[in-house]
Amino acid sequence: MANVVGVAMGSISDWPVMKLACEQLESLGIPYEKHVISAHRMPDELQEFGKAASDKGMKVIIAGAGGAAHLPGMIAANTTLPVIGVPMKTRTLNGVDSLLSIVQMPFGAPVATVSIGETGAKNAALLAAQILGTNDNAIAHKLADFKEAQRVEAKNSEQQFD
Amino acid sequence: MANVVGVAMGSISDWPVMKLACEQLESLGIPYEKHVISAHRMPDELQEFGKAASDKGMKVIIAGAGGAAHLPGMIAANTTLPVIGVPMKTRTLNGVDSLLSIVQMPFGAPVATVSIGETGAKNAALLAAQILGTNDNAIAHKLADFKEAQRVEAKNSEQQFD
Amino acid sequence: MANVVGVAMGSISDWPVMKLACEQLESLGIPYEKHVISAHRMPDELQEFGKAASDKGMKVIIAGAGGAAHLPGMIAANTTLPVIGVPMKTRTLNGVDSLLSIVQMPFGAPVATVSIGETGAKNAALLAAQILGTNDNAIAHKLADFKEAQRVEAKNSEQQFD
Amino acid sequence: MANVVGVAMGSISDWPVMKLACEQLESLGIPYEKHVISAHRMPDELQEFGKAASDKGMKVIIAGAGGAAHLPGMIAANTTLPVIGVPMKTRTLNGVDSLLSIVQMPFGAPVATVSIGETGAKNAALLAAQILGTNDNAIAHKLADFKEAQRVEAKNSEQQFD
Amino acid sequence: MANVVGVAMGSISDWPVMKLACEQLESLGIPYEKHVISAHRMPDELQEFGKAASDKGMKVIIAGAGGAAHLPGMIAANTTLPVIGVPMKTRTLNGVDSLLSIVQMPFGAPVATVSIGETGAKNAALLAAQILGTNDNAIAHKLADFKEAQRVEAKNSEQQFD
Amino acid sequence: MANVVGVAMGSISDWPVMKLACEQLESLGIPYEKHVISAHRMPDELQEFGKAASDKGMKVIIAGAGGAAHLPGMIAANTTLPVIGVPMKTRTLNGVDSLLSIVQMPFGAPVATVSIGETGAKNAALLAAQILGTNDNAIAHKLADFKEAQRVEAKNSEQQFD
Amino acid sequence: MANVVGVAMGSISDWPVMKLACEQLESLGIPYEKHVISAHRMPDELQEFGKAASDKGMKVIIAGAGGAAHLPGMIAANTTLPVIGVPMKTRTLNGVDSLLSIVQMPFGAPVATVSIGETGAKNAALLAAQILGTNDNAIAHKLADFKEAQRVEAKNSEQQFD
Amino acid sequence: MANVVGVAMGSISDWPVMKLACEQLESLGIPYEKHVISAHRMPDELQEFGKAASDKGMKVIIAGAGGAAHLPGMIAANTTLPVIGVPMKTRTLNGVDSLLSIVQMPFGAPVATVSIGETGAKNAALLAAQILGTNDNAIAHKLADFKEAQRVEAKNSEQQFD
Repeated sequence: MANVVGVAMGSISDWPVMKLACEQLESLGIPYEKHVISAHRMPDELQEFGKAASDKGMKVIIAGAGGAAHLPGMIAANTTLPVIGVPMKTRTLNGVDSLLSIVQMPFGAPVATVSIGETGAKNAALLAAQILGTNDNAIAHKLADFKEAQRVEAKNSEQQFD
Repeated sequence: MANVVGVAMGSISDWPVMKLACEQLESLGIPYEKHVISAHRMPDELQEFGKAASDKGMKVIIAGAGGAAHLPGMIAANTTLPVIGVPMKTRTLNGVDSLLSIVQMPFGAPVATVSIGETGAKNAALLAAQILGTNDNAIAHKLADFKEAQRVEAKNSEQQFD
Repeated sequence: MANVVGVAMGSISDWPVMKLACEQLESLGIPYEKHVISAHRMPDELQEFGKAASDKGMKVIIAGAGGAAHLPGMIAANTTLPVIGVPMKTRTLNGVDSLLSIVQMPFGAPVATVSIGETGAKNAALLAAQILGTNDNAIAHKLADFKEAQRVEAKNSEQQFD
Repeated sequence: MANVVGVAMGSISDWPVMKLACEQLESLGIPYEKHVISAHRMPDELQEFGKAASDKGMKVIIAGAGGAAHLPGMIAANTTLPVIGVPMKTRTLNGVDSLLSIVQMPFGAPVATVSIGETGAKNAALLAAQILGTNDNAIAHKLADFKEAQRVEAKNSEQQFD
Repeated sequence: MANVVGVAMGSISDWPVMKLACEQLESLGIPYEKHVISAHRMPDELQEFGKAASDKGMKVIIAGAGGAAHLPGMIAANTTLPVIGVPMKTRTLNGVDSLLSIVQMPFGAPVATVSIGETGAKNAALLAAQILGTNDNAIAHKLADFKEAQRVEAKNSEQQFD
Repeated sequence: MANVVGVAMGSISDWPVMKLACEQLESLGIPYEKHVISAHRMPDELQEFGKAASDKGMKVIIAGAGGAAHLPGMIAANTTLPVIGVPMKTRTLNGVDSLLSIVQMPFGAPVATVSIGETGAKNAALLAAQILGTNDNAIAHKLADFKEAQRVEAKNSEQQFD
Repeated sequence: MANVVGVAMGSISDWPVMKLACEQLESLGIPYEKHVISAHRMPDELQEFGKAASDKGMKVIIAGAGGAAHLPGMIAANTTLPVIGVPMKTRTLNGVDSLLSIVQMPFGAPVATVSIGETGAKNAALLAAQILGTNDNAIAHKLADFKEAQRVEAKNSEQQFD
Repeated sequence: MANVVGVAMGSISDWPVMKLACEQLESLGIPYEKHVISAHRMPDELQEFGKAASDKGMKVIIAGAGGAAHLPGMIAANTTLPVIGVPMKTRTLNGVDSLLSIVQMPFGAPVATVSIGETGAKNAALLAAQILGTNDNAIAHKLADFKEAQRVEAKNSEQQFD
């Protein structure tokens, strides 16, 4: 089965966060591939990646980047697949720069932006699954099960009151 | 054919902006339905809408809201369909409040957030089409055509230099 | 005597902060109950909680949440009891996201928002007591005593100059 | 019957906004009195107002102010009645200054802060009514009716789609 | 000789920062007195302090406070002496709240605002000295000497390049 | 009598705002002189102005500037007179840039920063008068009269309720 | 003579602002060419433009873009020529998004960022001239003359005091 | 060979960051000199430095400063050489103050602003090299080699996935 999700990150330093997206995809049984694609160091590879994604069987792309975060938007410029952007937390501006660089896309190339940082990485995987789930009942059911499990977990968490 | 996209807005005052999403969906030939669902005035209707969306044949939901914008996130809490959030520009804070209220979702309920305001509304429709296009070649082709048309239009716009 | 204050929090991870609200209520002798109600994981429970609060004898609700903090506003959508919102400090945006998500409510569903974080949690309890005190002389007197004690403590704190 | 709500504003220039709070109180049949009390020009009057409010029969205070908005917090310093703060939109910073000056109160003197500007003024009146409604069934019923009317109005607003 | 500078702080917790202002005053040989005056816990003492300052021989007041920082502005409301405001760094918003609460004063009650935090505290002392120095040649000379010493120190700091 | 206040502005475009400071000085009978001194176009004149100010009889300097507003701080670098900084409102960032560029001075060169824009300009004049008033009873009395007049005006403004 | 400056803008809608850069280059007699290159609609053309710029004789590139402004950074990714970025003012966020998207570049691909909007466009042209002037005495002299003319103009602007 | 780059910093405390710029220049074999020039403590030296830079053989100036960061802009006011500004991260505002103080320059004195902090310092050196490279093939080649090395390094970093 093809890797239906492509996970890209702007730098290997984003890996500890983007790994959470990968783990979430794995737990949902979704095949994916992952790449470091620096928009500013590897612009040719970025172009190729965007243009080839659909033909290689990908259906959704998750791209994480920080600061002047151009990776998600530039992939979106090169494909008509849905692109999910994960704003990395940054040392100076906490990720406000990443968020605005990713979400404020002009007409024609939307990026589906999620929360800043680790939560965003995990949610990106869920969002990718939701997109796949629109035509894959198995994934849709897994998501429904996951949602129910989360509900139960949240409800039971009251037992942790001290 | 079912309305595969549900367009929700928090107030009728969001209509002039959200209408742009609807027009974009129409131009791509995507059947949709639209509703005013105020998260804070119609919480029961919101719950129902979220829970019933999938069974009614919707595959993607677009939700626009402003200020303490809870509509997109609360729909996401009630469905496993992908939810696209459009942050409305606000009179006092220009939409920063809407953006943060929509994008900063916790683990478990992602909202695919797009740009603030009119650009976001139009991009939300494109993103919905991209999601549908992952399993609908006709839409995928329309998106490719649209992308090419945009490229040509941008390129030719140089003729407007005065 | 009924639990006149309901303390809700969006996640068990908010407990170390919201506990301060509970302790403050206890020190004022105000009966309360506390719950984890995740707006995004437990939307049905949230609705129920909001709708049933008044009948169960609650008079004021304190709700703490972080990020895209929808809990206080969604409870406010389901009750006409006064709802006090406590914006949690967040790891990425320090609570600015929580604050705006809670305070910028539309017409019809106000949330009485207090300071971000621990101070806010403690003040939420005092505000709840002030509300109860509008018709309960015992509480009103306790608040007056507390205020006087704080005045004295602040005044005497000069002795800590080194 | 005593004026159970005191409406204070930092400047006569806040009147066009604070008038909306007064109108909302009137529509709910809640007796109130209104005053211009400039924290910085009338500090003695401010102290007196705060200290005397409870004895004069007030149960809730609504205070609107802009910029370095000290009025709500300083009233809160002088009374144990609940104080609702309305941050005025400002010409330079859109009300971010007002919001932070009002909401970020230290432990001991909470201010129940609502949205910036006109929405906040109207919501302040509703919040005052909610507080009064905790011990006044007539007001509680009016609020429930108002909430239902809002629900219906929002629902019907779909007819305005063009 | 009278204490020509009054140093006020909103909480004993501000002392480690405000101490730097005091030490700077001492190093310039300027007599001062220091007080904890919580605007929100000690509003009467605040009023008294402001009104009495001039008669007690004070010529300049330095006031440090954090969050919804009302102390400097409320002292300014009660005196025509120049008031210098020091915005404390805060745990949640880093002092942006303090800064805006202090600097954005309305017409009639200016507060001479300096930098956030420790630098501000030290600069407040220098500014107080500059104000006194407009009519005190000894202080003016000390300031000139201090300025020259700073110039030399900065120039010589190049020797620390490694 | 010497011009005890020097009013500097970074551009003639700041004049409509800085004029308000001048008018306020005039209404208090304080002799002043005014200059356009662009920090970035006239750095030599800026240096001269700062160095000569004290010898020319000035006792306080008011400097207004916008954007990367270096004028107040650079004057402060060249004199030990107190310098009052007025942050101009800017077209893009509303004056946040001006405010931070003026207030966040390092140790050694404080700038007494007032509110952004017109209010700040007028308050700068009052602050200058307060500084002069520390050793000039006539000015101190005028300020006391002005304060009382403001109190009365604010109090009477209630008559404008409609 | 080759067009030593390349002026690129992300959209024809940026032309009214970027025209100011062109006019400034013309007034300094610097040959340039201008293009609309949308990073998101014309990614291939962007790549080509960046890669070919040096061979075509360009020495400096000016790129203006707004929102999630990727154009300057992506050109910088494709050339080792200096790239000057002009952040466009945006309707929702005033250009804060453009500024952060342009300036916060990662190691390896700097963008020389200037002020937001019209001032930035004009300054971009001056900065380009300064860069060229490091090896072109004629341009260096023109810049010196321009600087002196600006000094005189600023100095004489005092005659416009009314 | 002359020191073609001048590196200035506002304080010796900026050295650990600005050292990164120096090291980058060294690795590219570009002769430079470095100085502490405090805009506010050494205004005369600043003026001299700016005015003399060109005659001493400098072609580009890198200036790092924090807070109310006036150094880059004031050097730009005194030279027509290109000035690169590095905004230092600050303890209270993370460098937002530095960034705005440096980038928002008025017409006539551009500062080529780079990222906040360490990344900015290193990028400043690259930008200086790019400027020099416009007329120095050896530097241009080194930059091309560096860019290629960065591409390879980024590409190979995938091996670090764990």
